[in-house]
Amino acid sequence: MSDVEWSSVEKTVAQAAFEKALEREIDALVNEVRARASTITKLDDVWQLNDFLSARRHEIDGKYSYRYSVLIFVFAQLVKEGWLHLHELEGLEADKRTKIKALTRM
Amino acid sequence: MSDVEWSSVEKTVAQAAFEKALEREIDALVNEVRARASTITKLDDVWQLNDFLSARRHEIDGKYSYRYSVLIFVFAQLVKEGWLHLHELEGLEADKRTKIKALTRM
Repeated sequence: MSDVEWSSVEKTVAQAAFEKALEREIDALVNEVRARASTITKLDDVWQLNDFLSARRHEIDGKYSYRYSVLIFVFAQLVKEGWLHLHELEGLEADKRTKIKALTRM
Repeated sequence: MSDVEWSSVEKTVAQAAFEKALEREIDALVNEVRARASTITKLDDVWQLNDFLSARRHEIDGKYSYRYSVLIFVFAQLVKEGWLHLHELEGLEADKRTKIKALTRM
């Protein structure tokens, strides 16, 4: 799955799908942070928010890696987690979509 | 400034002052976290909140050390930062209060 196997049309589709998923996840995270922050009253709550943010940061930093060598796996994970829909990957060649779909079932 | 130099009356005063300062700082922190959280819109804002919380945690964990050997310095810092008023330390012997007052000017 190296760089050369992705056509320029596929790259455009992939980039858009990737950004859409990230945008959705950021929106959800922003909303969750606001909701959590509105309920904190004591120091433990503050540190729990801190721990939550550190964990999410680690997870998001690791997950959103736009490298063509791993993009199939990234997309499968994003579909699995609900940040991306399979139909948003239309435009990628059938073989890649089949692989992504298969990976979402693992 | 070891343990034995604090009378039981002084310990009661010290404990109450310490808790009062911590309570004030927690209240201020909770309000600031809520205010900051209400303005976040993008991922960078979320991570900035995370960094802010990590820094405050480190600072608060380090500052609120209830050990009689360092309590004079802790109180001086809390007064300096406005979390405690000198008059709230009435009940400590004059010598300690003089030291605390002098330290707040450094």
